[in-house]
Amino acid sequence: MYREKIKVLDCTIRDGGLINNHDFDFRFVREVYKAISRAGVNYMEIGYKNSKKLFSPKEFGAWKFCDDDEIKRIIEGIESETKISIMVDVGRVDIEDVKPKSESPVDMIRVASYVKEIDKAIFLVNHFAEKGYETTINIMAISKDMGPELDEALHQIEEESKVGVVYVVDSFGALYQEPIEFLIKKAKSILKTREVGFHGHNNQQLAFSNTIEAIIHNANYLDATIYGIGRAAGNCPLELLMGFLKNPKFDLRPILDLISAEFIPLRDKIEWGYIIPYAIAGMLNEHPRAAMALRKSDKKENYREFYESILNVGLE
Amino acid sequence: MYREKIKVLDCTIRDGGLINNHDFDFRFVREVYKAISRAGVNYMEIGYKNSKKLFSPKEFGAWKFCDDDEIKRIIEGIESETKISIMVDVGRVDIEDVKPKSESPVDMIRVASYVKEIDKAIFLVNHFAEKGYETTINIMAISKDMGPELDEALHQIEEESKVGVVYVVDSFGALYQEPIEFLIKKAKSILKTREVGFHGHNNQQLAFSNTIEAIIHNANYLDATIYGIGRAAGNCPLELLMGFLKNPKFDLRPILDLISAEFIPLRDKIEWGYIIPYAIAGMLNEHPRAAMALRKSDKKENYREFYESILNVGLE
Repeated sequence: MYREKIKVLDCTIRDGGLINNHDFDFRFVREVYKAISRAGVNYMEIGYKNSKKLFSPKEFGAWKFCDDDEIKRIIEGIESETKISIMVDVGRVDIEDVKPKSESPVDMIRVASYVKEIDKAIFLVNHFAEKGYETTINIMAISKDMGPELDEALHQIEEESKVGVVYVVDSFGALYQEPIEFLIKKAKSILKTREVGFHGHNNQQLAFSNTIEAIIHNANYLDATIYGIGRAAGNCPLELLMGFLKNPKFDLRPILDLISAEFIPLRDKIEWGYIIPYAIAGMLNEHPRAAMALRKSDKKENYREFYESILNVGLE
Repeated sequence: MYREKIKVLDCTIRDGGLINNHDFDFRFVREVYKAISRAGVNYMEIGYKNSKKLFSPKEFGAWKFCDDDEIKRIIEGIESETKISIMVDVGRVDIEDVKPKSESPVDMIRVASYVKEIDKAIFLVNHFAEKGYETTINIMAISKDMGPELDEALHQIEEESKVGVVYVVDSFGALYQEPIEFLIKKAKSILKTREVGFHGHNNQQLAFSNTIEAIIHNANYLDATIYGIGRAAGNCPLELLMGFLKNPKFDLRPILDLISAEFIPLRDKIEWGYIIPYAIAGMLNEHPRAAMALRKSDKKENYREFYESILNVGLE
């Protein structure tokens, strides 16, 4: 039943960090790393590597910068075969901050990019690949960019880049099975020498099923987060994906323990999951920005007005 | 984009009733009927018609019995094209309690049946069809019964029954797209003169995507509930399904208003949705009974022990 080529990447701390300014404390991140390692998950993405010239360490937690020394403190003394991943955004990283792989605890660097910035993403992954890292390009907001420019970007990646994996990223939680099939087949057909991955968002409760659809069409790199934590509606829940994959090396129990002990209390403090304004943003293929602002206002449960405002944006 | 043959059935009060002893008050049920009517949803299922010899009206609310007079009080004075549906379980209904259609506010009677009870279900639907009602057979727990006996039951329904619609019911929330495709195609191929429907449960956040999958393979009768309310993990959220269908006669706004005003407060009082023990039951293809008992105990967040206990059931 299981496909050995499939690799699961947990991005609990990285995507979850988007809802708490990347400020998970040392103990919590270590608990996550322990559980992910015991569960047999292939990669753990621990945060973003952002330039400290652009963002102040006074305003954000350690996982917005991912200094090598901070990562070493997390993984020290924990038995693990889980590789460490970090993410960079095009235009927000100082490449001089990234040491050669031989001097770093990081195994993989993932570059998040819109279709229109693919040239910059290729420059970055080639640079990181030359420094010895595994690399991916994560094509964001793909539901807004499914036409000929996507084809061109994919061809360019195949021809000009050293990247290992290209992810289809449903940033707006807008896709369902048929467009997922279309996108994964397109990516596989153009990226003949690379692996294809999928990263879903759960606005419409479709992140897990879209991940299954990506598996059916031979995507082998799959993102998930514990209890689905992540910005706005969150991501594909890791526990569901592990239950589906039936990889005999996986053990669900450390993840269940961590949800009981840490994520149930955490969910009372920070909000993510199935929340109507995020569902509306997903069904209308919009960025969750406006919905996130609504949830911080005193109109947080005023769904009709929000729905009408999003519909009217389209009419302006 | 939209398919006119598709009919949406809201079973908020019926399936939601399974978590509050069918005891929604008169005002609440009327608010739901108003919103469903304004939204343009085709059917509203209001409860079960159970024998009062088997269940005491002292222990259960009105929607476990669905007396015609109670239904009339709900719909009275509300402009609506929404048809009223009730459900009966094989072995729990007194057929003398069901008046001819011409004397009743009910339009459709749905018979819930396991594969092994299909003879009794056929007797019931034929009886109700003769009394003038639209009818369905809802084949429950189908994830446990996908072999030759299911084929036999479907052939028997096609040959011996007067039923209009046959539902595939994923009672355990165990299915994903591939088995849904298998089941809907099988049902369509055998039930050449009937419509096929789908009723999902949301244990693994797959109720909506499974409903989409059923649509893709030409199921035309679709169940959903407001904000996904229903036993254990609940059902396919009506608001997501309406957003997907793009039927120009549908209006999402009355449903959004009702969620804001009624379902957000209700969710603080009674529990449904994505809850780990229900997810575990779904991934292991088990009835949610044990998970429901756990959620009422002081071990409600003890997921590991629960997971191990369910795994061990299989070894006994």
